[in-house]
Amino acid sequence: MSDLSMRAEKLDSEDELAHLRGRFVLDSVSDHAADAAGVYLDGNSLGALPANVPGRVEDVVRRQWGELRIRSWEESGWWTAPERIGDRIAPLVGAAPGQIVVGDSTSVNVFKALVAAVRMAGEGRDEILVDATTFPTDGYIAESAARLTGRTLRPVTPAEVPGALSGRTAAVLLNHVDYRTGRLHDLPSLTSAVHAVGAIAVWDLCHSAGALPVGLDEHGVDLAVGCTYKYLNGGPGSPAYLYVRSELQDRFDSPLPGWNSHADPFGMRTDYAPAPGALRGRVGTPDILSMLALEAALEVWDDASVHAVRAKSLALTDFFLECVTAYVPEGAVASLTPAAHEERGSQVALRCADAGDVMKRLIERGVVGDFRNPDVLRFGFTPLYVGFADVERAARVLGEVLGQLPR
Amino acid sequence: MSDLSMRAEKLDSEDELAHLRGRFVLDSVSDHAADAAGVYLDGNSLGALPANVPGRVEDVVRRQWGELRIRSWEESGWWTAPERIGDRIAPLVGAAPGQIVVGDSTSVNVFKALVAAVRMAGEGRDEILVDATTFPTDGYIAESAARLTGRTLRPVTPAEVPGALSGRTAAVLLNHVDYRTGRLHDLPSLTSAVHAVGAIAVWDLCHSAGALPVGLDEHGVDLAVGCTYKYLNGGPGSPAYLYVRSELQDRFDSPLPGWNSHADPFGMRTDYAPAPGALRGRVGTPDILSMLALEAALEVWDDASVHAVRAKSLALTDFFLECVTAYVPEGAVASLTPAAHEERGSQVALRCADAGDVMKRLIERGVVGDFRNPDVLRFGFTPLYVGFADVERAARVLGEVLGQLPR
Repeated sequence: MSDLSMRAEKLDSEDELAHLRGRFVLDSVSDHAADAAGVYLDGNSLGALPANVPGRVEDVVRRQWGELRIRSWEESGWWTAPERIGDRIAPLVGAAPGQIVVGDSTSVNVFKALVAAVRMAGEGRDEILVDATTFPTDGYIAESAARLTGRTLRPVTPAEVPGALSGRTAAVLLNHVDYRTGRLHDLPSLTSAVHAVGAIAVWDLCHSAGALPVGLDEHGVDLAVGCTYKYLNGGPGSPAYLYVRSELQDRFDSPLPGWNSHADPFGMRTDYAPAPGALRGRVGTPDILSMLALEAALEVWDDASVHAVRAKSLALTDFFLECVTAYVPEGAVASLTPAAHEERGSQVALRCADAGDVMKRLIERGVVGDFRNPDVLRFGFTPLYVGFADVERAARVLGEVLGQLPR
Repeated sequence: MSDLSMRAEKLDSEDELAHLRGRFVLDSVSDHAADAAGVYLDGNSLGALPANVPGRVEDVVRRQWGELRIRSWEESGWWTAPERIGDRIAPLVGAAPGQIVVGDSTSVNVFKALVAAVRMAGEGRDEILVDATTFPTDGYIAESAARLTGRTLRPVTPAEVPGALSGRTAAVLLNHVDYRTGRLHDLPSLTSAVHAVGAIAVWDLCHSAGALPVGLDEHGVDLAVGCTYKYLNGGPGSPAYLYVRSELQDRFDSPLPGWNSHADPFGMRTDYAPAPGALRGRVGTPDILSMLALEAALEVWDDASVHAVRAKSLALTDFFLECVTAYVPEGAVASLTPAAHEERGSQVALRCADAGDVMKRLIERGVVGDFRNPDVLRFGFTPLYVGFADVERAARVLGEVLGQLPR
């Protein structure tokens, strides 16, 4: 047994979150290659299946839909699911209740948030700043929001934001963690800078929520969106969420004012009157199967604090980088992920020649990460179910795949 | 046995679709009151559970998500589900393949369709006509589309549309079947009238798709949207769909250009380039659980033609009106649903004093319809699983509840 695998064993034995791994379906046959147990480091793309979800979904389908049918809109709490589940996400992102609704995709929520932000900022402000390194959909949607509201879209890196802000700035859309490099941006200071010029700060939390503390209320974030299928393990395409700071809710003027956001939705009135509170971020009928699978998936957080998760996440990525240094010959990979903890999310991105092919071979060996164009190996670390032995093994297999280690 | 119940028995014995009832979960304990077997006449709000759905959903959750995880985006066909399932819906609404994508709510699709329609119509046209009797969300969303595109929204009844059309008209949003009255509008002639002034016709098929032939291609409809949880039985909040006529796809300029509609979605490019075809109606990551439940639900259509469904639907609503006339004392209810077949959808709406209370009592007796403000009893007839004995019983219980029949 190598030093690093002994270290991993010790770290796992001291891990206060280790017992939560049993709440997830892992180590399935399909993952396994002949020579390696499965290591799932792609929870930042699709979180693993929580063990309580299949039974919950079966109940939703067979009893709630199959037997109660439309009565479930009231009796099974379908109608209020978007805000109820929003309140379950709220503590994970540092939000008091009543500010988050779940529903629609992240892209659709970015659209709601940006158009609403521009309207809150007022007529005189003609520019939207968008993170130039953003996940592409945010940029495409921001372009559409700018076009429809007659504003100019200006892509800037997060580092350039302070210098680009002015009295012309209406809104700024930023990612908390960069999807490609795993860089964590400074949400408190960037939000302050946005507010200093009187603009609205919109944050995309897809790669941070459930992996590290966000502090939306504490840092005065105006609007935020995020997906739920990464570190929140809601399942493929589970609905996204929208945060609207309570002080701004009365001014939230949605570009998608569907009947679910009406003050009296069953009044079937011709004139639109928005509901009070975060409810006005709702649009159409919520997709109940996906939504209630997510609700079950969130129950694990009753027994996990996001602070403990963050501490373990940093320990995991530190250890992974250490193992990579030990197992992978110098120069074969280069980390794009910042070394400083305050700049690191919960993933490690390694630049590597032939990265697409390398990732295929890793997956064949049971180590599942993903490949991002053009040359990035991306490994996500979900502290709820990834352990230190997983990390050691992943780095060791990477070293072997790169063909440099003696077997 | 009364004449009408003998008639019902005979009609059921001659019904060529009767065997499809077994494909649905009905007659569950929860429906039953002490004195009446359950009759579900609310499939126009939420379709009953198809018997093959629970097993499919279990496979999607346990195997596709739980075991294959991200591999399912390719191996389980998750990524292509929106267009694949769109092609399954296509024949039900008279569309050739490649013109329908599934995803998002109806409200969101109305927004995509209307903004795209205004853009197709061109700069010179400054007016959007919207069905004044529409389901409210369509009107709210149309108002938002008008506001964001700088157009004026003009609500008119479908009958007023021909007179209201002009060279100023950019787009017209109409419902194929009125959600409240059940009136079927004349899609071919209204579409022709819209085209005669060079405007774009957008149809909402929520209350017609799966209940009667629509003929989108045949009648030259430009854009259409619909939900899938009514006559298509996709489950609570199952995703809606968008039809974009093939000739118009190159000009479909979406206000929600999410990464799923990109020509090269995994290229992660900064610049947006729309995919060819109906794909450009996609937005963000599709909600797979709800989407694949819908796919299973649609399989019943392999054994049912929409023309046979339409014939049975008319027979059911005719028979219901006949039974109501026989069982309910004159003057207690008045039908809002047209008597003429060519003007009738697959529901019957009865105006009735104290309708909310009457519907509660019907539901207590196992006859499930719904109440719509202010005074409407709404009964939907899904020919795939509603039989003539159900219809006779529902009308009989209605007569009893209205307190006029001798027991």
